[in-house]
Amino acid sequence: MARRYVPSLELIGPASDGETWAVARLISRAEAGVPEAREAIGQIYKRAGRAHVIGITGVPGSGKSTLVGKLVQRLRDDGLRVAIVAIDPSSPYSGGSILGDRIRMSDLVLDPDVFIRSMATRGAVGGMAHAALDVVDILDLAGFDKIIIETVGVGQDEVEIAKSSHTTVVVSAPGLGDEIQAIKAGILEIADIHVVSKCDRSDANRTMTDLKMMLKDGIGSALTRGWLPPVLETSSLNEEGFEELVASLDKHLTSLDGPAGVERRAQISAFRLQKAAETLLLERLRQQANYGTQTRRVSDRATDPYAAATAIVDQFSRETTHV
Amino acid sequence: MARRYVPSLELIGPASDGETWAVARLISRAEAGVPEAREAIGQIYKRAGRAHVIGITGVPGSGKSTLVGKLVQRLRDDGLRVAIVAIDPSSPYSGGSILGDRIRMSDLVLDPDVFIRSMATRGAVGGMAHAALDVVDILDLAGFDKIIIETVGVGQDEVEIAKSSHTTVVVSAPGLGDEIQAIKAGILEIADIHVVSKCDRSDANRTMTDLKMMLKDGIGSALTRGWLPPVLETSSLNEEGFEELVASLDKHLTSLDGPAGVERRAQISAFRLQKAAETLLLERLRQQANYGTQTRRVSDRATDPYAAATAIVDQFSRETTHV
Repeated sequence: MARRYVPSLELIGPASDGETWAVARLISRAEAGVPEAREAIGQIYKRAGRAHVIGITGVPGSGKSTLVGKLVQRLRDDGLRVAIVAIDPSSPYSGGSILGDRIRMSDLVLDPDVFIRSMATRGAVGGMAHAALDVVDILDLAGFDKIIIETVGVGQDEVEIAKSSHTTVVVSAPGLGDEIQAIKAGILEIADIHVVSKCDRSDANRTMTDLKMMLKDGIGSALTRGWLPPVLETSSLNEEGFEELVASLDKHLTSLDGPAGVERRAQISAFRLQKAAETLLLERLRQQANYGTQTRRVSDRATDPYAAATAIVDQFSRETTHV
Repeated sequence: MARRYVPSLELIGPASDGETWAVARLISRAEAGVPEAREAIGQIYKRAGRAHVIGITGVPGSGKSTLVGKLVQRLRDDGLRVAIVAIDPSSPYSGGSILGDRIRMSDLVLDPDVFIRSMATRGAVGGMAHAALDVVDILDLAGFDKIIIETVGVGQDEVEIAKSSHTTVVVSAPGLGDEIQAIKAGILEIADIHVVSKCDRSDANRTMTDLKMMLKDGIGSALTRGWLPPVLETSSLNEEGFEELVASLDKHLTSLDGPAGVERRAQISAFRLQKAAETLLLERLRQQANYGTQTRRVSDRATDPYAAATAIVDQFSRETTHV
């Protein structure tokens, strides 16, 4: 019994009615970059823009997956429909989907008003950022009120995806190593809201003090467009601090009414457009460029990579003239 | 007293004599992507290729910085000149150089036959991979026998840099969290040599068993070109296992005599050339593309990012015709 291939354009209607099967198929096609789906995704983009998109990021071990689970329960208590897009930290060299697996096991999965999708990091330049934001549009069309993008704050792509939300939450936690702390310092400045998780731990006070010191030193504490990022504490274990987190998310969303929101959306659009243009250009280069001869010359050190690259790019530019 | 700007081409001579001041200046220029230095770097590339380049990578907390320190001491005992290029895990949004700082504090810094340089992750696509491998060439020209590229095995760039060496070492350690383990699984397959560090710890046996199980399942254990990646144990605390590590590095280098080495070098060249071509093309796009109008239309959802990107790239292609 072969399942009929429903053209992507025909999936828009059922997806906008919240039909899970249509949403799931559109997402799979967006993720795989199916050419047939591109027009539909373009149309969906034009109809989206209603949901509150929340980026939640933190270094490995910061407890963000557990925090997301608790936050979603709280949002469900308020009657909101919630979608989670979990960006997987695995390298392009392997499969795996640890965030997704962990969430999938929780009881949220049985709730029809919660949609969970995990996406693995892929090799393509900018490809994941694209696909993740296309998925957000599809979920927006499907009527979800809150869409959470969860990423591990390590790679540049992951950080940029977290930034491409209306409200970005950076999760810190006590008891992490030096290297992890250094990575954390690098993502603080994208935060609209700071959360110190695991505040039931005895060393949480120290983390809070350290974080406030870093913010005082000007890292991640910029007062932009009238918004000073608050520092909240949560304990997933004791279910504490989530009311404050939800209130803070709402308050930030309200702050985006007016010019601040216009500016934020313009920034996100600029990022998406740049990523899309660069990805498209590199796709064309990969399809058309002939590396063979130049690779051999570089390998023999008869020429250097820059000179060879210039020859390849010049040749590519000449050829695309005739497209 | 202004320091005279010595043209990069004039630095090649002193750098090849091992003059640290010339080496340092060339490295700074390669790292900053100074246009004036490009011809010199091209010439250096053509003269390089003698050193043994070793990539050492591992997840945060795997103890690789300490391991690198101990390994360098051992290589120095054998009378070899050693350079270390430490790629910093900080995000593009901050400065910082934790790996470098840590190494800088050790006594290796006083040894004139050890050169240490830390490089921060940058925003430019592929830019860091380029610059790091240019730095390797400069150090090769300067007569270092072993050049170690140390990276945190998290971002794609970092993993690709580690792969762009003659011998890639992946460091695992006991007692790391789930997310970290998932990231680790993703980098196992680039290993020519596996090292379990901190084998003085009581839970190291478990790590060793787990790793061997994963390798048995086919992750990172491919017998390629007659080389089966060995699994070694080290303890930086007890200074154990480093003789075996050095022997294994030598054995792998020997395995690259003949066709296996030709193939490996061709792979590295192909990677460098592709990165160089893509970076060059994106540089041209960034200089020439006019995003303004399209960004506004995307932001207003009057068009979608793909349609707008196609318009921008088509326009760019038409314009580069006249270059």
